[in-house]
Amino acid sequence: YSRAEVAQHRTPGERVWVTYGTDVFDVTDFVELHPGGPDKILLAAGGALEPFWALYAVHSQPHVLELLRDYKVGELSPEDTAPPAGDAQDPFAGDPPRHPALRVNSLKPFNAEPPPELLTQSFLTPNELFFTRNHLPVPAVEPGSYRLRVQGPGGRVLSLSLAELRQRFPKHEVTATLQCAGNRRSEMSRVRPVKGLPWDIGAISTARWGGARLRDVLLAAGFGDKSDEDGEWHVCFEGLDVDASGTPYGASIPLKRALSADAEVLLAYEMNGQELPRDHGFPVRALVPGVVGARSVKWLRSVVVSPSESQSHWQQNDYKGFCPSVDWDSVDFRSAPAIQELPVQSAITEPRPGAAVPAGELTVKGYAWSGGGREVVRVDVSLDGGRIHQL
Amino acid sequence: YSRAEVAQHRTPGERVWVTYGTDVFDVTDFVELHPGGPDKILLAAGGALEPFWALYAVHSQPHVLELLRDYKVGELSPEDTAPPAGDAQDPFAGDPPRHPALRVNSLKPFNAEPPPELLTQSFLTPNELFFTRNHLPVPAVEPGSYRLRVQGPGGRVLSLSLAELRQRFPKHEVTATLQCAGNRRSEMSRVRPVKGLPWDIGAISTARWGGARLRDVLLAAGFGDKSDEDGEWHVCFEGLDVDASGTPYGASIPLKRALSADAEVLLAYEMNGQELPRDHGFPVRALVPGVVGARSVKWLRSVVVSPSESQSHWQQNDYKGFCPSVDWDSVDFRSAPAIQELPVQSAITEPRPGAAVPAGELTVKGYAWSGGGREVVRVDVSLDGGRIHQL
Repeated sequence: YSRAEVAQHRTPGERVWVTYGTDVFDVTDFVELHPGGPDKILLAAGGALEPFWALYAVHSQPHVLELLRDYKVGELSPEDTAPPAGDAQDPFAGDPPRHPALRVNSLKPFNAEPPPELLTQSFLTPNELFFTRNHLPVPAVEPGSYRLRVQGPGGRVLSLSLAELRQRFPKHEVTATLQCAGNRRSEMSRVRPVKGLPWDIGAISTARWGGARLRDVLLAAGFGDKSDEDGEWHVCFEGLDVDASGTPYGASIPLKRALSADAEVLLAYEMNGQELPRDHGFPVRALVPGVVGARSVKWLRSVVVSPSESQSHWQQNDYKGFCPSVDWDSVDFRSAPAIQELPVQSAITEPRPGAAVPAGELTVKGYAWSGGGREVVRVDVSLDGGRIHQL
Repeated sequence: YSRAEVAQHRTPGERVWVTYGTDVFDVTDFVELHPGGPDKILLAAGGALEPFWALYAVHSQPHVLELLRDYKVGELSPEDTAPPAGDAQDPFAGDPPRHPALRVNSLKPFNAEPPPELLTQSFLTPNELFFTRNHLPVPAVEPGSYRLRVQGPGGRVLSLSLAELRQRFPKHEVTATLQCAGNRRSEMSRVRPVKGLPWDIGAISTARWGGARLRDVLLAAGFGDKSDEDGEWHVCFEGLDVDASGTPYGASIPLKRALSADAEVLLAYEMNGQELPRDHGFPVRALVPGVVGARSVKWLRSVVVSPSESQSHWQQNDYKGFCPSVDWDSVDFRSAPAIQELPVQSAITEPRPGAAVPAGELTVKGYAWSGGGREVVRVDVSLDGGRIHQL
């Protein structure tokens, strides 16, 4: 069989086919028997099992493979077992492979979110499923020659290799949730059409991040701990990802936050105990807890302290909020501040809207989070849109 | 005439009477001619003009009094020109006189708010109109013998007279808004009955406060500037106002906020350039910007740093928020944190709901505010409950 033929078998009605190595299996009769639930096995329908088994270690037991063998219906054609060749003209041809469970909102640049039911499968989102918000092609960075440029006071420059960043500064770890400003935009569009990627509820993910504190690096570059005087200054980040004209992605945060020990802003090189994946900023990204994801600049190439915010398009003319009466003809981006801290957010991941659910007790799963380091103190759930309040 | 007779004349239909000194005036025919608008003069209807003229200096010109003379209809009875005698048995008998424009939600203890249209008459709320939220009788404090007790580490006590508080610590001034947690509760009760004082939209007011920084006083008492270690500690305030059993009002805030220079927590002794009025904590009150008013303890007698929050009723069993499904039979106060920072708030003060307004251009007045030092970045106004968004 070709991979295209396998991909046509994604529902019990079409039969459910999967591949493992070069073998093809029809697991339709196993779907209802799947210990993790039929919805989970159907995420792999029409494609390879390996990416899912890699995430959920329970599958790496000999009896699982034995059980699978009973469902074998054939093998992949030899010409379909090699990866497809890249297109040299496509700026996105160098993008890394992605997990097939990700729900893709835009392929080039790549923007994708985990399915809701996998988001709440674990508190920390696996790296492969972490929502990805790229603005430009993923840069290919050679870690041995990577340098982070930190501009100190008076124009002095601190240039740090990856090894220096790891060795000169204590490693600090923080568990933090990143959220895209557009999370749940598809729900907004049901009220009135909104421009932007049609994110469902999955443009939010949580990881354990490790790296140098930005505060420590700024102090080493010569910035004093005088937050009163520098209260209105900014730390501008630039990435190695560039557009067709060579302009990099960029964003900034207030210097006060960057210097605050409490705010725990990192120059992160680890994500859930591994080096950063390419889609998440390899080898180094900014990580700004409690702040809109757009400021956690990936593939970081420079850090500059400045009396002005980043002049980047994404700081000046995007990631701002306006009154509903403002439209794309009347918007004046200078009239609104750049989004920094995000407000409270919550969503139900299971069951999904419109789902048929069995009679009797029902487990409801979801998430609640707040930006700015503020706690979520309680979650209220209503079964009737808030009319009768019963828990 | 008696004051009771005058008080029966509060609307044009009943004729509008006012007093000035011992004279009684029927100003019905002047109401529509009042340069400040008919609604403002009607605030004084049935009572004395002096409290209003004292607030709005435009009245202290000779021609105003001449104009008033034309409307004289009589004089007050001699027995009605002396203030009424107090009741020695009433714990509230020593409460101070209040401005007649205040809308009283509870007389004993005194809880009152300014009328909406006076709240937005000026950015700083005049002291006489500042909303008052008392939990107990107002204590009579002799400023000469007043002492503030600050308990330092290891049980050492710093005892400060009012003069010492003023002289030993730099005076810091901050413009801050205080809001009662119950502001706008009367609107909530229209959805479902809620227990508590029926505040309209005026349980919020702004003043310029002057006093010693709490931070400076805590440092003088021996508390070091080590916010990391003491992050979970609290500063407990007690007032001189006590209930029938002698238990004082009390509340606490996190030590981290108390020590933060940014948070600008004061031990305030000035309000809009004057000494604190008795209703607002004379001679010294805590003033905690951005935090629910209940923590800005008035008539302050002690400041204690503690690993626990205040054990006061008002910290433990009041000023907390719950899910709408919790009622007074099922509430477990230990399950919710004490309210500290307040969220964003806004209201329209003019025109009032249901008001008849003239055709043509209309001026809408109101306020918008946020707790926690967070900025209000924009105000959206809708004329149709948000259905069509047009400004």
